Amino acid sequence: MAIELDHVILPVGDLARSAAFYAEILGLALEPESERFALLRVTPTFGIQLAAWGTSGGQHLAFGMSQHEFEAAFARIVAAGIPYGGSFDTVGSMTEPGDETGARGIGKSLYFFDPDRHLIEIRHYGEPQRRDAPID
Amino acid sequence: MAIELDHVILPVGDLARSAAFYAEILGLALEPESERFALLRVTPTFGIQLAAWGTSGGQHLAFGMSQHEFEAAFARIVAAGIPYGGSFDTVGSMTEPGDETGARGIGKSLYFFDPDRHLIEIRHYGEPQRRDAPID
Repeated sequence: MAIELDHVILPVGDLARSAAFYAEILGLALEPESERFALLRVTPTFGIQLAAWGTSGGQHLAFGMSQHEFEAAFARIVAAGIPYGGSFDTVGSMTEPGDETGARGIGKSLYFFDPDRHLIEIRHYGEPQRRDAPID
Repeated sequence: MAIELDHVILPVGDLARSAAFYAEILGLALEPESERFALLRVTPTFGIQLAAWGTSGGQHLAFGMSQHEFEAAFARIVAAGIPYGGSFDTVGSMTEPGDETGARGIGKSLYFFDPDRHLIEIRHYGEPQRRDAPID
């Protein structure tokens, strides 16, 4: 096993408010630990530890997903009336997803703020080529 | 593909100083992007985007690894004279790794600060059971 990220701490103002937001928009579930800590589960080996000690925001988290999952999340953002933008400095412009660089290169990105004004990005790198695609 | 973390931003004071630290202690390589941004590569699908816009520290990143890799990193920390501790609030006490909760449950953790006083944790969950272990 190589090195991997196990968890990060994201300070928030209210655990229940953040739990509702990340569940609604990204489908992530919260695993409560105590009155002040809870783990937002992302994968079996990674989670975001929410710490209810208050914050002025400003952290940046980018989530990768499939194009299908991206489009579903985008639709939930629109339905929830959450301001968004296609680049980090255009949140609220309601512009289409932009082309931004992430861990796997250039992809389509959408930016918005969480309830504590942490800057959240969702992104996808396009659909993988189907191995069984017919060759014309 | 399910959702996963693609990248986070870690603000730093000096890209070269952070690059040297993370290379020496954790063996992570930097992929420069510009004068103010660089990606600290962790896995093929995740990296930490270092942003040289200054910081007062205080973010927390925890890295999971094998017990063998943990012990090697611990030895490098000791050799480099970096203050450490077995819990988040005992950095500098030079105590043994403590038992702390991470994304995969209880594991052995060691804490120290990076050059910008971000709190870094390394952890392991013990060696996996060998499938070919003899049964006595």
